[in-house]
Amino acid sequence: MTDLKPKTVSGTVDGPDVKHMKWWGWGVDGVAFHHEDKPAFAPFVKKVVGVDLRTAAVTAAPSFDDLEIPASRTTADVTSALSLIVGEGNVVTGDMERVVHTYGKSIRDLIRIRQGVFPRVPDVVLYPATESEVAKVVAAAIAHDLVLIPFGGGSNIAGSLEPQPEEQRIVVSLDMGRLDRVLDIDEDAGLARIQAGAQGPDIEEQLNAKGWTLGHFPDSFTHSTLGGWVATRSSGMQSDKFGDIADITRGLRMVRPEGVVVLRAVPSTSTGPSIREMILGSEGRLGVITEVTAQVHRIPEKREIQAYFFPTWAAGLRAMQAISESDATPSITRVSNEVETEMSLATSKASKGISALLNQGVQRFMKLKGWDLSKICLSFIGYEGSDEHVDRNEKLVSKIVKKHGGFGVGKGPGVLYDQKKFDTPYLRDFFLDHGGAADVSETAAPWSKLLTLSTEVTAAAKRAFEKIGVQGVIMGHLSHSYHTGACLYFTFAFEHGEDALGQYDVVKRAIQDAFIAEGGTLSHHHGVGVEHSPWLEADVSAPGAALMQGLLDSADPERHFNPGKITGR
Amino acid sequence: MTDLKPKTVSGTVDGPDVKHMKWWGWGVDGVAFHHEDKPAFAPFVKKVVGVDLRTAAVTAAPSFDDLEIPASRTTADVTSALSLIVGEGNVVTGDMERVVHTYGKSIRDLIRIRQGVFPRVPDVVLYPATESEVAKVVAAAIAHDLVLIPFGGGSNIAGSLEPQPEEQRIVVSLDMGRLDRVLDIDEDAGLARIQAGAQGPDIEEQLNAKGWTLGHFPDSFTHSTLGGWVATRSSGMQSDKFGDIADITRGLRMVRPEGVVVLRAVPSTSTGPSIREMILGSEGRLGVITEVTAQVHRIPEKREIQAYFFPTWAAGLRAMQAISESDATPSITRVSNEVETEMSLATSKASKGISALLNQGVQRFMKLKGWDLSKICLSFIGYEGSDEHVDRNEKLVSKIVKKHGGFGVGKGPGVLYDQKKFDTPYLRDFFLDHGGAADVSETAAPWSKLLTLSTEVTAAAKRAFEKIGVQGVIMGHLSHSYHTGACLYFTFAFEHGEDALGQYDVVKRAIQDAFIAEGGTLSHHHGVGVEHSPWLEADVSAPGAALMQGLLDSADPERHFNPGKITGR
Repeated sequence: MTDLKPKTVSGTVDGPDVKHMKWWGWGVDGVAFHHEDKPAFAPFVKKVVGVDLRTAAVTAAPSFDDLEIPASRTTADVTSALSLIVGEGNVVTGDMERVVHTYGKSIRDLIRIRQGVFPRVPDVVLYPATESEVAKVVAAAIAHDLVLIPFGGGSNIAGSLEPQPEEQRIVVSLDMGRLDRVLDIDEDAGLARIQAGAQGPDIEEQLNAKGWTLGHFPDSFTHSTLGGWVATRSSGMQSDKFGDIADITRGLRMVRPEGVVVLRAVPSTSTGPSIREMILGSEGRLGVITEVTAQVHRIPEKREIQAYFFPTWAAGLRAMQAISESDATPSITRVSNEVETEMSLATSKASKGISALLNQGVQRFMKLKGWDLSKICLSFIGYEGSDEHVDRNEKLVSKIVKKHGGFGVGKGPGVLYDQKKFDTPYLRDFFLDHGGAADVSETAAPWSKLLTLSTEVTAAAKRAFEKIGVQGVIMGHLSHSYHTGACLYFTFAFEHGEDALGQYDVVKRAIQDAFIAEGGTLSHHHGVGVEHSPWLEADVSAPGAALMQGLLDSADPERHFNPGKITGR
Repeated sequence: MTDLKPKTVSGTVDGPDVKHMKWWGWGVDGVAFHHEDKPAFAPFVKKVVGVDLRTAAVTAAPSFDDLEIPASRTTADVTSALSLIVGEGNVVTGDMERVVHTYGKSIRDLIRIRQGVFPRVPDVVLYPATESEVAKVVAAAIAHDLVLIPFGGGSNIAGSLEPQPEEQRIVVSLDMGRLDRVLDIDEDAGLARIQAGAQGPDIEEQLNAKGWTLGHFPDSFTHSTLGGWVATRSSGMQSDKFGDIADITRGLRMVRPEGVVVLRAVPSTSTGPSIREMILGSEGRLGVITEVTAQVHRIPEKREIQAYFFPTWAAGLRAMQAISESDATPSITRVSNEVETEMSLATSKASKGISALLNQGVQRFMKLKGWDLSKICLSFIGYEGSDEHVDRNEKLVSKIVKKHGGFGVGKGPGVLYDQKKFDTPYLRDFFLDHGGAADVSETAAPWSKLLTLSTEVTAAAKRAFEKIGVQGVIMGHLSHSYHTGACLYFTFAFEHGEDALGQYDVVKRAIQDAFIAEGGTLSHHHGVGVEHSPWLEADVSAPGAALMQGLLDSADPERHFNPGKITGR
C-alpha cells in the first residue's frame, strides 16, 4: 500500500490469533490515508464539498476508554456451555472484542462508533475451529435460546452484523476467523474446498502457492472472508472474467439445527428451487456457512490493465456496452464519470500515475479533438489470459474505444490502479477525521437505463444535499458489465453537521429511491442487511418479499439466526 | 425434418387454437421416425438390444376409443366460476383434452398412455389469455379449493405435470398456450419480455423477425415453452454460448395468491436469498409464471458446426475439458461415446451425412493412426459470432483436438446434425412400436469425475439389464461444458417384457443411483418432478431438502399448486 502511512494504534483485542480491523475504522491499525504528496487533492475537496483540509479541525481517533459499552448479558451457564464446545480461550466477553463485533464498516457504523452509540453489543464472541464445533454452537443456540450472528472479516456496509437493539436474548457473535484454510484443490476440475472464515489474502496465498487463483477481488478483499462474500452475494473487480461469487460458488456446507446442508460441487443442476441460491445472500439468516467449494482458475500467463479516456460519460458507457456485446472478453470493464475522473486525477501524486497522464501533450490532443476537459472520463479495462488472448482483446477493445471517440493512454495508470485498488475504503476515515461524511451506493440496471439512472441519481443526491443545507458531491463509475446491463457504483460525500446520521439518511434515501425509480436493484454486491431493507419490497415486489419471508420463517421460526436482516423482521 | 415421414393421425383435441403434441406420443401428429433409408440402423438395433426390426411385431398407435378415462370431477359451480374468468370456450372438460394434459412425454408417460393407465386425470383444462385471468384463476383455486397444474408444451419427462393419484379435489390443468407473444424487445439492452406460454418456434420466429435470438434450443424446443423451461431449469444445445435458462432469465412475473411476484430485469443483484432462483425450477409449486424478461442476442453473423473424431471417449472428454479451459468460446461442445457414435453412424442415410464420413479414406486414416474403429468417438463443436471470431475459435479448437489425438472432418455432418437435432425424441415412439423401451437420464459432475461416472453408470445399467433379463444398451454424450465440469447425457434402451414399467424402474434406478454415487447431480436440465424426487435428499442432503420443503410449505400451505412435485410431498 504505497499510498498509506502509519497512524497511531488505538486499541487491541483479546481472543485467539484472528486478524481484525481497527475497532474504530477501516483496515489495518496504524495505516491511514494522507494527501500531503497529492497536491491536487485538497483543492478538489475544497471545490466539491467546501472542506478546507488545511484549516479543518481534525478529530483524533476515538479513545476506547471514553466509550460506555453495555455489559455482557451472558450467564455463567451459557458461557460455560460455550466454553465446553470451543475451549475457554475462544469464548471472549471483553469490551473491545464485543465492540469489534458489533458493527461492520459502513459510514453509519463508523459514525456510531465515533459517537459512542452502542444500543446493543454482542454478549459473547466465539471462535469455533471446526464445523463440528459450529454444529454444537448451533445446537447450544437452540437449547439456550441464543441469537447467533456469523462474523467474517467485519467489512460489511449494509448493517448485516449488528444485533437488533431490542434483542433481550444473549447475542453471540460467531467469528469464523479460525476456519481459514484451503482444504483441498481438485486440480483436474478447478475446484477448491475452502473454509468460510478464510480472508481474501489467505485464500489467494494458499491458492497461488499451487498455481491457482479464485479471482475474487472486492474492494474489501484484504479484510473480508469467503463466507461473507457468499452470505452477501459479493462481486469482485475482476468478476467480468471470473464471475460474481454466485457463479464462483459451486458447493456449500451450512450448519442448520437439523444438520449440515451439504451441496456437492456440480457445474450446474436442474434441481430447484435452488438451495445454493437460498444460501447465497442469506446473511446468516438460514444458518452458518462453514465451507465453500469454489471454482478456481490457473493463474493467467499475462495480466494487464489499460487506461483510456473518453470525451464524455455517455461515450464511456456506450463503449462499455459495445465491449460487452463484442467478441472481447476483458476481465475488468470500468469507466468513471467526469467527477470521479477529476477525483482520480486529484488523488494521484503530482509526478506520476494518473495525473501525469494529463500532461500538456495529452491535454492538447484532447483539445484538438474538441473535448471539454471538464467532461473527460477515465476508463480501465483489464485483460487476463495467454499473451495472444490479451493482445487480441486489447486490439478488439482499442477499436471499440476509438469508435466511441476515446483513446488509450497505456498501462502505467493501470499498474497504479492495481496497486492501490484496496486503499479506497481508508479515505472514509480520513474524511470523517476532517468533518466529512462519505459512503457508497451501488446498483445494477439494464444498459438502456444506465445513463438516465446516473443522471437521476446525481440529481436526487444534489436535491438531498440542498435539503440538508450542505455542499456535497456525488460521483460514479461503471464497475461490472453483463450482457444486458452493468453495475453503477456511486460515492457521495458532504461536510456533515451535528446530526451526521440524520443527514446521511436523507442523502442515502434519495439515492436508493432513485435506483428503484430508474429500474436499478437495491444493491449489486453489498447485500440487503438492515441498510437496504426498506427498499426490499420495491426491489422484488411485496409478494416476492413475502416468499422470502416465508422461507426465513420456516427455516428459523424462533429467530436464532441473525434476526432482522434482509426483510427487517 | 428431412428424416421423418407422415404417420396416421389418431386423435384431435377441442378447445382454443393452441398447439399440442399427439396425445399418445411425441411431436406432430402424422410425423414419425422411419429407418427404411438407413441401412445400418436395423442391424445396429439387432446387435445392441436384440430386436429384429424386420420381424418384430409392430404395435399400431393406440386407439383413443379403447381407453377408459375417469370422468371429470368438476362441479357446475366450479366450471361456471372458471368460465366467467376465461370464457366458456376456454374451459374444456372433454376426455381427449384431459388426457393430453395428464402426462408429459417420458417413457413412463408413453407406456402408461399405451397401456391406458390413467389413475388420475385433470378434471378441467383451462386456457387463460392474460395474466389478469391467471390471477383470477389462482384466486378461484383458493376460493374453491382446487389444484392448479400449469401446463406449457407438455414435453416434460420428469413427471412434473401429472395429478397425484390420490387427489380428491378438482384438478385444473392451466394451459398457458394462449400467452404466446413476445411483448417487447428492449433493443438497447438485449432484453425481451416474453409470455410464459410461448413455444420455442414462436419465440424464435418473433425474435428473428427483428434480428434477435433467445439462443435456447433444448431437444424439446419445437414443443416446449419458455415458462416450462424456467419452471424446470432447462438447458439448450447452444447453452455453452447463450447460458442455461437460469442465466437467460433476467426478469420474471409469477402469479401468487397474494399478488404478482414482479422481478424486474436487472443484470445482477445482491438481494438474496434469490427469489428468481426460487422460481427457477419451481415446477408450478410456488405459483404460475406468466412472463419472463429474457436476455436476447443479435443473430450472429456466422454459425457453424464442425465435426471431429477422437480415438477414444477418454480422449474426447479430455479435449472438451481443454477447450473449456482455453480461450476458445464455442457455442456447442459435444462428444459421443463409442456406442452413441456407432448409433449416430447407423442412423444416417447410406449415401450422405455422418456415415459417409467413414468412407474408406477416413477409415484407412484412422487405422494408419492405430485407432480401434470400435472405440472412435464423434464430436460436434459449434461456433457463432463474427466471421473472424468463428475462424479464430475453429483454429483454437482445432489445435486442441489435434493435441488430444483427434481430427476434424468438416462441417457437412454438422449441417445434418443441426437439421435433425429436434428429431431424436420421435425415436422413442418408434422403438415402443417395436417392443422396445428407451429413455434418457442426464447429470452434471466435475471434470475430474466424468470418466469414472460414465464407466460406473454404464456398468450399473448393464447390471440392471442383466437383473431384469434383457439385452440392453446404454450410450452417452457430453452435451454442455462449464469451467468446472460438464453434463453427461445418457440414452438407454432394451426390449421390454410385459412389465415394461417395472423393468424401466430397475434400469432408471441403477443409473440415477450411479449418478449420485459418482458425484453427479440428479439431473442437469430435466428437473426433479416425481421421477427424480427419490434422489432429492441424496442430491442436496436431507437438511437441504428440508429448507426447500419449508419454502414450499410456507408458500402453499394448502397445497393448491402442483402438489407432490420435487420433494414428493
